[in-house]
Amino acid sequence: MSTSVSANPFTDSPAVGLICRNCQATYPLAAQHACWQCFGPLEVDYDLDALGRVTRADIEAGPHNIWRYAALLPAGVDPATRVTLNPGMTPLIKAEVLAAELGMKSLWVKDDSANPTHSFKDRVVSVALTAASQLGFERYACASTGNLANSVAAHAARAGRPSIVFIPHDLETGKVVTTAVYGGELVAIEGSYDDVNRLCSELTETDEFEATAFVNVNVRPYYAEGSKTLGYEVAEQLGWRIPEQVVIPMASGELLTKVDKAFTEMVEIGLIEGGESRVFGAQSAGCNPIATALRAGTDEIIPVKPTGIAKSLNIGDPAAGPYAIEAVRRTGGWMADVTDDEIRDGIRLLARTTGVFAETAGGVVVATLKKLLAEGRLDPAAETVIYNTGEGLKTLDAVAQAGPTHRIRPSLSAAKDAGLLSSF
Amino acid sequence: MSTSVSANPFTDSPAVGLICRNCQATYPLAAQHACWQCFGPLEVDYDLDALGRVTRADIEAGPHNIWRYAALLPAGVDPATRVTLNPGMTPLIKAEVLAAELGMKSLWVKDDSANPTHSFKDRVVSVALTAASQLGFERYACASTGNLANSVAAHAARAGRPSIVFIPHDLETGKVVTTAVYGGELVAIEGSYDDVNRLCSELTETDEFEATAFVNVNVRPYYAEGSKTLGYEVAEQLGWRIPEQVVIPMASGELLTKVDKAFTEMVEIGLIEGGESRVFGAQSAGCNPIATALRAGTDEIIPVKPTGIAKSLNIGDPAAGPYAIEAVRRTGGWMADVTDDEIRDGIRLLARTTGVFAETAGGVVVATLKKLLAEGRLDPAAETVIYNTGEGLKTLDAVAQAGPTHRIRPSLSAAKDAGLLSSF
Repeated sequence: MSTSVSANPFTDSPAVGLICRNCQATYPLAAQHACWQCFGPLEVDYDLDALGRVTRADIEAGPHNIWRYAALLPAGVDPATRVTLNPGMTPLIKAEVLAAELGMKSLWVKDDSANPTHSFKDRVVSVALTAASQLGFERYACASTGNLANSVAAHAARAGRPSIVFIPHDLETGKVVTTAVYGGELVAIEGSYDDVNRLCSELTETDEFEATAFVNVNVRPYYAEGSKTLGYEVAEQLGWRIPEQVVIPMASGELLTKVDKAFTEMVEIGLIEGGESRVFGAQSAGCNPIATALRAGTDEIIPVKPTGIAKSLNIGDPAAGPYAIEAVRRTGGWMADVTDDEIRDGIRLLARTTGVFAETAGGVVVATLKKLLAEGRLDPAAETVIYNTGEGLKTLDAVAQAGPTHRIRPSLSAAKDAGLLSSF
Repeated sequence: MSTSVSANPFTDSPAVGLICRNCQATYPLAAQHACWQCFGPLEVDYDLDALGRVTRADIEAGPHNIWRYAALLPAGVDPATRVTLNPGMTPLIKAEVLAAELGMKSLWVKDDSANPTHSFKDRVVSVALTAASQLGFERYACASTGNLANSVAAHAARAGRPSIVFIPHDLETGKVVTTAVYGGELVAIEGSYDDVNRLCSELTETDEFEATAFVNVNVRPYYAEGSKTLGYEVAEQLGWRIPEQVVIPMASGELLTKVDKAFTEMVEIGLIEGGESRVFGAQSAGCNPIATALRAGTDEIIPVKPTGIAKSLNIGDPAAGPYAIEAVRRTGGWMADVTDDEIRDGIRLLARTTGVFAETAGGVVVATLKKLLAEGRLDPAAETVIYNTGEGLKTLDAVAQAGPTHRIRPSLSAAKDAGLLSSF
């Protein structure tokens, strides 16, 4: 990180520029996501002294949402600049029944289905659009596997701004309707997410899209920083302590790298005295290029054509895969992937033991937790946080066979005949 | 209210007994919901002095959920006694775009879809089950139009307790799956909600259900008090001020009476200096017995056989109807009912202007707001709060025709052919 000060378009922001994750070339804060020298991805570079001035008391005095961490984010310190549904500070749930069932000592579920559009994407969209709005963009857009589409369309509606959202044509109904209802443009693409993403990259280069911010393309560095709040919040909610182990779902792999970055940063700037989290990544068997590369002992991700029910994780060519592998190796974690049947069982297990109804990505995480325990990769005695990033109501088909246990006429005798008057 | 002190089974509770809403007969705190003398409904009676000792600072220092008001509720002061998903402190959203579209000066949406199972029912279930657990009940149950079923099943799962939930057989899939997934007993009844409710009343009288708490039957007085938090929160979130007008959906009518009670109580015990809210009630045309009685100038509710898409409000024989009418008359409010098409338009209008995707009950409220404005019943210049009590994802069918605005191949030329490269 740099401590030099450059022109900063965002009011009171601790960000000083963009920096290439590969060659460390630096750029001013603008709508740019790739390095002109090595084509590597850019991320936000901060003034470490500014970050170091942030105290626990400052944060605790802030609002009950992600903006309590505004002084650690690239944009949004001034509330008037925020384009946001005010996501964050979602519950960290002590999962006692689930821990007992898995033979674990201390297990928590960070439940991000509690966000306004019911996924962690509200965090990244709020940060991206706050930056985009200050950079002069007038229309909001994204390439999405579903949750991001919901969030961008809802943010635009609240802000009274136009939106145009691109999705694969074969998404779950729960994710299509929940985007369309907000009234923006919604473009279904006859192809995979990777096709959608490629088209959006091309569109950002056209004159007609000059004033359009694609949250995960041309303003991606700001977008990605929003995920840090999923690390900050867990540490604060544990009483300013970093959990020993975390299990995180992987699509592009970016969420995992940013939670790891948040933990590292909190120690670095003195918000937390010490500690490191062993970081574990979760994928589905239908789309496991990052886990496969880790197991093969390489950094090279071989793209796959995704299949399976965990559609929100179906990114076959995951941009942050190598960085996710680096974080997992460095911290002594591991990765696993799980089948569709294991995902369904994971959803039901989590619901039955915690009252949290997760989407398929949450099922992936619970099933991966079980697998990593069985393989001896994850320590059942160490404090563990698993991340549920989405809402079961959006992927109802995964458990649609769940129905009433009885169907009877409305009479006491019918209840008796059905065995409901036996002792429970 | 009484200020006498009786034996109190709940640790540190300000409740002193139960009192009949009709004849004011008093009873000790127990699992009883009807008066033995006049068969009127019972509600919780408090020690007014105890309530009067609660300060704004006490509340503000509490957790970011309903339990910050524990000292104003019948049970749950001791955190160890709570059976809860920690609902509450849901967003109060300034609806500027919607206000502009309706010609209103100051409009807020209280969005209770942000609760753990995405409806206001988590509030009443948390209070009911906390009381029930302390009264010795071992199994949790309810008669439900859907949202309550979700909440009771999820609360039981979190607590590691058995549940048995009764619903009409023709509910929305989103509400059936979201109950079944938690793994308790789920009984579909071949009849209406009113049939379900009658059967549950009969079951509470059987020996086999002696240890079963039906949250909205035998522990109903405690359950109903949970709705007060929807009044407390709005007043606190407005900066300790009571809004001039509120629009509230009506099923049994109880929610409306409890929000009114909360406002009145806050003034009475000195938490707020003064003010009164004009209370407006919203029903669907398919189930409008309370609005019909008000318009007819009577207190007598004539039960109806409910129809229409707003199933969560489909209670044809609403127990608290007369009390809702009393509150509306006393405060100078009014009621209206709206058609299924108006409900669908209301859902879309709210989504498009606020980013909040409401279930059909929320559509009823928005459509009722429009109707009351058109009728000149509601003052567009007065500060108004409308209540969204549930989540659009649970009633997707209501807006299922919403889909992509375009469908194209993944290429720039296809985007051009579809007109997407014209200026927006």
